[in-house]
Amino acid sequence: MPSNLTPGGNPAEVLPLRNIQLLSTIRYFVVEELRTARRFLKACDKSIDIDSLHFEVLNEHTAPEQVTRMLAPALEGNNIGVISEAGCPAVADPGADLVAAAQAADVQVVPLVGPSSIIMSLMASGFNGQSFAFLGYLPIDARARAAAFRQLTRDIAVRHQTQIFIETPYRNNRLIAELATSLPPNLKLCVACDITGPDEHIITRPLAWWRSQRYDYAKRPAIFLLYS
Amino acid sequence: MPSNLTPGGNPAEVLPLRNIQLLSTIRYFVVEELRTARRFLKACDKSIDIDSLHFEVLNEHTAPEQVTRMLAPALEGNNIGVISEAGCPAVADPGADLVAAAQAADVQVVPLVGPSSIIMSLMASGFNGQSFAFLGYLPIDARARAAAFRQLTRDIAVRHQTQIFIETPYRNNRLIAELATSLPPNLKLCVACDITGPDEHIITRPLAWWRSQRYDYAKRPAIFLLYS
Repeated sequence: MPSNLTPGGNPAEVLPLRNIQLLSTIRYFVVEELRTARRFLKACDKSIDIDSLHFEVLNEHTAPEQVTRMLAPALEGNNIGVISEAGCPAVADPGADLVAAAQAADVQVVPLVGPSSIIMSLMASGFNGQSFAFLGYLPIDARARAAAFRQLTRDIAVRHQTQIFIETPYRNNRLIAELATSLPPNLKLCVACDITGPDEHIITRPLAWWRSQRYDYAKRPAIFLLYS
Repeated sequence: MPSNLTPGGNPAEVLPLRNIQLLSTIRYFVVEELRTARRFLKACDKSIDIDSLHFEVLNEHTAPEQVTRMLAPALEGNNIGVISEAGCPAVADPGADLVAAAQAADVQVVPLVGPSSIIMSLMASGFNGQSFAFLGYLPIDARARAAAFRQLTRDIAVRHQTQIFIETPYRNNRLIAELATSLPPNLKLCVACDITGPDEHIITRPLAWWRSQRYDYAKRPAIFLLYS
């Protein structure tokens, strides 16, 4: 079961040839969204006959008991390709339940090389890559959010662990302002925006800089990293 | 400063065409090892004139004050390619100091798509990809190692955080035996071995299974993941 046939801009730009060649050998797909997955397959291979392919949709609305059923073609000896929308399947994206079912059924899982905003932003941040944590979304509730801020500050100080997290894009600016005003000003924040896209922009600056600066990341895909 | 032009098997198999095309436009390289970097560049592009390129070596023996000097070509407007041996530059590999210097000097850093054993093993493990930590090497000292085992067990239980770590390859079997005997048997261990290589092998099983099973990962490149 190969996973991560995912796009992020022009497929040929950011995906190895191997992934694109594999596509034409796969007839069963589990995808996060049908429309964009079809468009992606066409962009990879114009000669592909979309109507001959089998698609299942796996997203945050999928019931767990449906997931095991999606594995059936693999149990009969077929490859299944897993495609998620904008990241690596099963990493901050749907797919992990399907992979867990495959592992439990002793179905071979083959991860494919592709863009991961987590790793790419970490590479470009200059922060510690020997120890890091991805936290997903921080809590929204004020008290839980303050506790999360305290914990990540402590994990930077005590564990020397780079802290990586995401935010709903329309709240990006508010998150940066919160970090800049409520965390120690000597911590550094890296904002990595539009990774692999035409407007890619990745900068690391002290929180004191972010506090005094104008910026606008509203509604742009971004990932945030903190370290000392 | 593009980073991650790194290999891991046949370059064309695992790297996007974009990276390989970029190579021919870069004359300054900072590499972890000279010999393998030259061989990699030749494998990517047979027509490349290696003798016309400038190489600096950046590895664990490089003094920090040397790193700033390596940035000089970028300050004069040249691209610098960063190549590490077997992973993503600056992620569990040298390079982060150079990237930090680039960020401080306002030099643009462009991460390139490539294989990351951390992300690829996480994708294939079936474990939680919404929250995870990469710990690097666990401590060797017995007391510190026991404390690390306790902490990662707690971080799985309390933070629901997948724990990812590596080991010196000749100690792989000993590490698996330690985990299987000293951690709760219902935890699951994923061993991901030879990722993107011909002998790739990624399996997730309960620690109770690892306790009763024969295996041999000695001296093979592997990464380890734990979750409940």
